[in-house]
Amino acid sequence: MRTNLLSLSLLLIPTALFAAPKNIIYMIGDGMGPTYLTGYRYYSDDVTTKAVENTVFDQLWLGMASSYPDDDTYVTDSAAGATALATGIKSYNGAISVDHKHMPLSTMMMQAKKLGKANGIVASSQINHATPAAFLAHNKSRQNYNEIADMYVDYRINGKPVADVMLGGGKKYFIREDRNLVNELQQQDYQYAENWQQLDQLTRSPAIALLADVALPSAIDNPVQQPLAQLTSKALQLLATAEKGFVLMVEGSQIDWCGHSNDIACAMAEMDDFGHAIQVAKDFVDANPDTLLIITADHETGGLSLGANGVYEWRTDKIKKIRHSALVIAEKMLAATNDENALQIWQTLTSMALSEEESKLLLMAKTDSNKALTSQIKAIINNRTNTGWTTGGHSAADVPVLAYGKWQKDFIGFQDNTDIAKKIMQYIQQTK
Amino acid sequence: MRTNLLSLSLLLIPTALFAAPKNIIYMIGDGMGPTYLTGYRYYSDDVTTKAVENTVFDQLWLGMASSYPDDDTYVTDSAAGATALATGIKSYNGAISVDHKHMPLSTMMMQAKKLGKANGIVASSQINHATPAAFLAHNKSRQNYNEIADMYVDYRINGKPVADVMLGGGKKYFIREDRNLVNELQQQDYQYAENWQQLDQLTRSPAIALLADVALPSAIDNPVQQPLAQLTSKALQLLATAEKGFVLMVEGSQIDWCGHSNDIACAMAEMDDFGHAIQVAKDFVDANPDTLLIITADHETGGLSLGANGVYEWRTDKIKKIRHSALVIAEKMLAATNDENALQIWQTLTSMALSEEESKLLLMAKTDSNKALTSQIKAIINNRTNTGWTTGGHSAADVPVLAYGKWQKDFIGFQDNTDIAKKIMQYIQQTK
Ligand SMILES: [Zn+2]
Ligand SMILES: [Zn+2]
Repeated sequence: MRTNLLSLSLLLIPTALFAAPKNIIYMIGDGMGPTYLTGYRYYSDDVTTKAVENTVFDQLWLGMASSYPDDDTYVTDSAAGATALATGIKSYNGAISVDHKHMPLSTMMMQAKKLGKANGIVASSQINHATPAAFLAHNKSRQNYNEIADMYVDYRINGKPVADVMLGGGKKYFIREDRNLVNELQQQDYQYAENWQQLDQLTRSPAIALLADVALPSAIDNPVQQPLAQLTSKALQLLATAEKGFVLMVEGSQIDWCGHSNDIACAMAEMDDFGHAIQVAKDFVDANPDTLLIITADHETGGLSLGANGVYEWRTDKIKKIRHSALVIAEKMLAATNDENALQIWQTLTSMALSEEESKLLLMAKTDSNKALTSQIKAIINNRTNTGWTTGGHSAADVPVLAYGKWQKDFIGFQDNTDIAKKIMQYIQQTK
Repeated sequence: MRTNLLSLSLLLIPTALFAAPKNIIYMIGDGMGPTYLTGYRYYSDDVTTKAVENTVFDQLWLGMASSYPDDDTYVTDSAAGATALATGIKSYNGAISVDHKHMPLSTMMMQAKKLGKANGIVASSQINHATPAAFLAHNKSRQNYNEIADMYVDYRINGKPVADVMLGGGKKYFIREDRNLVNELQQQDYQYAENWQQLDQLTRSPAIALLADVALPSAIDNPVQQPLAQLTSKALQLLATAEKGFVLMVEGSQIDWCGHSNDIACAMAEMDDFGHAIQVAKDFVDANPDTLLIITADHETGGLSLGANGVYEWRTDKIKKIRHSALVIAEKMLAATNDENALQIWQTLTSMALSEEESKLLLMAKTDSNKALTSQIKAIINNRTNTGWTTGGHSAADVPVLAYGKWQKDFIGFQDNTDIAKKIMQYIQQTK
């Protein structure tokens, strides 16, 4: 087991002596509080060895950041969190890079574009969801999905849209009855992919891929392996040739959604996909040492704890065997021909033998509603694995800060989320 | 708002170029997961300023540590946690510096004593509780309080007990019918204090202070201001003259107990006391730069989250007004002459206006039992402040690692709890 990968030699050179990084890869695990990193480590643990292996997260983990929004609540939403991470300025919950008076706050990608850099966004949600939106648009409300999508095309810097590469979901917001933004982008020379086969055929920037109507399927339910890692790889391939370098934001969008849903198997699958995406980015830094990789989260979701209800044991063995999100397990059970068949489906998808009481509770919930069944499935899984949750919303927990590359030591220790953005924006300002 | 206090100049000098630290101050917040630091920051926030001020914890926060014990549960108890932190070797839950075969594991204080250093322990629990015990004794079970206390006197290195300074609670384990360990220590030239007045009169090492039968009162209920900070200050004063330097372990023992109890006002008061003790230690490092200060926790307790039940707000304003632990509030309400008087006591001690429903629930619980009333009090406080808990036990969350002094960068990033101990033990081995 390594303690950490910080190379002493890098620590000994003041970052001021380096030229600013040419490329920035900024990865945001939506909802990824520190317990998600801990959980993923134990979930990934090779149980045939005595020690617990470090994950790629552990190898890069250098600090922590506060995430409070610009009010007295201490608990941020994704929009305010992303605004802070994209502009260096805090705002209200719901804000997309605007201040309390709805005045625009300049984002690091707008700044980068003015200086001739290329920009990219990758998300497993719709690409106009709160986090990517805060890098590319201004809006008083994250809910204005169409207005935000419009801005991805209409807001121009030196005559061009802010983002050169956009990969994720959100077809329904970009191809609408009133406006076909994809056509408009194609007229601006953007290549377009509407499925994974076509994604492979994107050969150069600018490019947009919309691989789902809204969000991509949850990683645990997605037949595509490591979708975020694949998108990250493609984005880096398309951006790598940018003459003045690039800023790429990659969001693990659905860690948050599994957290809201209090679905631990779902959350661990998202962390696995995000971890593989980080590995892709880390490999890019190794091959392109003029690149800085920063990883953090906008906030914690769910009040997740490993161990619950007084039991001193977190059962990763059981979590690893779960094959679908609770939502999909419920759908499949509801489609069963009879109760016996429904319980067989449970067994196949969870490998968790039920007590008589649990079987009864599941079948009762099944007659009630999809929602009741989904809740009951999660209740059994959380109880059997000793996974704790305190909320279907966000919490005020500090979030992890990870960094890799010559400038990594600028992110050591405790900082505010706005400090992360300010440091990155200082680097961008040094673009020559 | 500062980002962090890491001085660049210190980061630029490899620690290998420094002589090993003469003195080690090792502070352990029992149960202090990262959310306790976040919570304490918001609890301490000066709401008249827009920014949230950094606490002394934030200023020194450099890394995170895993705390899993030597089995497949991932959730440690205090004994296994302290064994890892005191010896660099993981063991089973309940172990006091022994391995699975009950064979002794040499502790850093035993090593230090062999090399002629002085040792001190400070705790707000009984001084023979799991955490200090793991530094001074070997036992197959943390429950063997008398055997552990005996070992504090009987286990000799160069003819002397391992600890030169022992300050905390635990009189009943040291002054027993079968054996008076305090007398025995006094015969070995130890000064003895049995109350806070006498503590002031301790003038030199060796010395022992037993200020309570078992544990000190909870900080929130203790009329003594900042008890742990006072004990830390006294221990440093007594140890400062040790010719070959010292190892001092200071435990914020009762952060854990407030966590087990799911009592947030209690936890924040313990964090405040621990924070003041850290400030005392930090000031000592400033005055004695041959000292290294390390702060961590053995594990997280309670599955604490700030924000709960879907509400995006953590109400520090309400927590700050609570004047006692839930246990003491319950005792005082039970001693009331009638229901009206009981509700007045609630109001005085919490400043929290009750709904009719809440009043009913409290009075109903009051007729039931002290335990039921204490639970109901906490339920109302947690609900009103949106404080979440998932367990009355421990969780597997990684814990914060803080450090201060010339060698601080050796503790940056993610590490295992055993790595912390190993690094400190390497320093101790370099004693001249
Ligand atoms: Zn979010
Ligand atoms: Zn403990």
